[in-house]
Amino acid sequence: MATKTADFRDWARVQQSRTESVLHRVLPGAEIAPRRLHQAMRYAVLGGGKRVRPLLAFAAGEIAGADPARVEIAAAAVEIVHAYSLVHDDLPCMDDDVLRRGKPTCHVEYDEPTALLVGDSLQALAFQLLAEYRLADDPAAQLEMVRLLATASGSRGMAGGQAIDLASVGKALSLPELEFMHIHKTGALIRAAVVMGARCGNSLDQAQLDRLDHFAKCIGLAFQVVDDVLDGEASTVTLGKTAGKDAEQNKPTYVSVLGVPAARDMASDLRDDALEALGNFGPRAERLCQLADFIVLRKF
Amino acid sequence: MATKTADFRDWARVQQSRTESVLHRVLPGAEIAPRRLHQAMRYAVLGGGKRVRPLLAFAAGEIAGADPARVEIAAAAVEIVHAYSLVHDDLPCMDDDVLRRGKPTCHVEYDEPTALLVGDSLQALAFQLLAEYRLADDPAAQLEMVRLLATASGSRGMAGGQAIDLASVGKALSLPELEFMHIHKTGALIRAAVVMGARCGNSLDQAQLDRLDHFAKCIGLAFQVVDDVLDGEASTVTLGKTAGKDAEQNKPTYVSVLGVPAARDMASDLRDDALEALGNFGPRAERLCQLADFIVLRKF
Repeated sequence: MATKTADFRDWARVQQSRTESVLHRVLPGAEIAPRRLHQAMRYAVLGGGKRVRPLLAFAAGEIAGADPARVEIAAAAVEIVHAYSLVHDDLPCMDDDVLRRGKPTCHVEYDEPTALLVGDSLQALAFQLLAEYRLADDPAAQLEMVRLLATASGSRGMAGGQAIDLASVGKALSLPELEFMHIHKTGALIRAAVVMGARCGNSLDQAQLDRLDHFAKCIGLAFQVVDDVLDGEASTVTLGKTAGKDAEQNKPTYVSVLGVPAARDMASDLRDDALEALGNFGPRAERLCQLADFIVLRKF
Repeated sequence: MATKTADFRDWARVQQSRTESVLHRVLPGAEIAPRRLHQAMRYAVLGGGKRVRPLLAFAAGEIAGADPARVEIAAAAVEIVHAYSLVHDDLPCMDDDVLRRGKPTCHVEYDEPTALLVGDSLQALAFQLLAEYRLADDPAAQLEMVRLLATASGSRGMAGGQAIDLASVGKALSLPELEFMHIHKTGALIRAAVVMGARCGNSLDQAQLDRLDHFAKCIGLAFQVVDDVLDGEASTVTLGKTAGKDAEQNKPTYVSVLGVPAARDMASDLRDDALEALGNFGPRAERLCQLADFIVLRKF
């Protein structure tokens, strides 16, 4: 077991470093005009984050026998959308946060208009990547990836979840309402990461993609539940972002609705559900199983 | 001549109404959750604007013998990106504008966080449309449209031009610097509209697409020069947006650099250049020629 954990950590480190290097490569150089914008884009994306979505994409790609040189572009596109959403979420008119991944947030380090344009430009870059590189043998499959990412990012995905989140401040949400919000806010992009990673390969049928999607749905929710537990418990230093912010802003969380012990149980149940969905894939699914554990058992 | 003008107006009215109806159809319904976000998206896009980019896409589509049912989706995607950029440009941290197309701006009618998410969601929707509908016989050609729109919207296109614009406030720009800014800020999307419209058909070779792109580059600049002249001259009521804003914010414009008479001359020269690029297309290019005149001679 100790060896397995060590092995997973090594694998994750390799994929994280691969992600870092592909992001470094696909982001416009800091010396290209407009320089300040490109510097700020690189600041917002590089050198931080757990890279959970790329890890999920790589692990799903392994199940589908996908070429990692293709998966890394899909992974970068998803991570770039995630990074843009953090930059916009941190803006004064949204969460007004000053600390992210242990560094000043983008609008603090640069300025508000630049941070706004950083987010806008990153979103465009994500779709540019999906169109510019060859990610699937069939261009139609690649268009399907564009569709997946666009749907996951937009008003019926991540941005919509953010809107529901805003509307819920100070309200007592029921568990299903909270779930609805998170399935959109964080879940949609996590599902896109898994399914896009798998679609870089050719070996899965629709039923298998649906099982992966169900895995990703469970793991996306578990991720958020664990986030809420950690946000309630951890210190700002451990978390690398302002801790206790949700409670302070009177935002409903799994902890505020369920309390810590029941929230922990829920995360554990979601992990079981997720692993069950992977049942038939056999040893190819090992990395995804380990990621499920990593997400539920992480301490930061 | 009077008949030709009347005929062009009729054509433009038909395309504008077609644009309105496709936008109405592809925007998420106001009754779909999250409702406030979807209402605000519809508010920001529907019922206003000259729809210059869709008109250009339709006219370019005519040259390429493209099916208008395909062109209208490409046109909608470009117009939706344009609409998102207006919503973000109007935000307090950017131009802080309260009036747009004769109505309160999105953040005034709704609120700032909603306007931010409206822009983000509209951008995602534009790419979703390019992936969801069949726009070309060859899916690879459709991926090329995704690439075109992403490049035109991002840091080396529209958003980059906006960043250069921000950095230039209070500075005396040279004519080439001003041109560089506008080629990005408004030019990139206008070029994308023309080339994407043409790419919905199959009949043009690369040299012809390049000539259309040159036409669009000239007409995009002319559009901005005329905008600056009108902004300097017109009243808020005629313009439907706050007039004299650029001068007030000490932004360099073609009028501040050249003065009104030379700016008018420049627009007229650009029109001549644009029309020359269309020389070999013959009567199929009639609508694009008329649009060039419309853009240069418009009074609002």
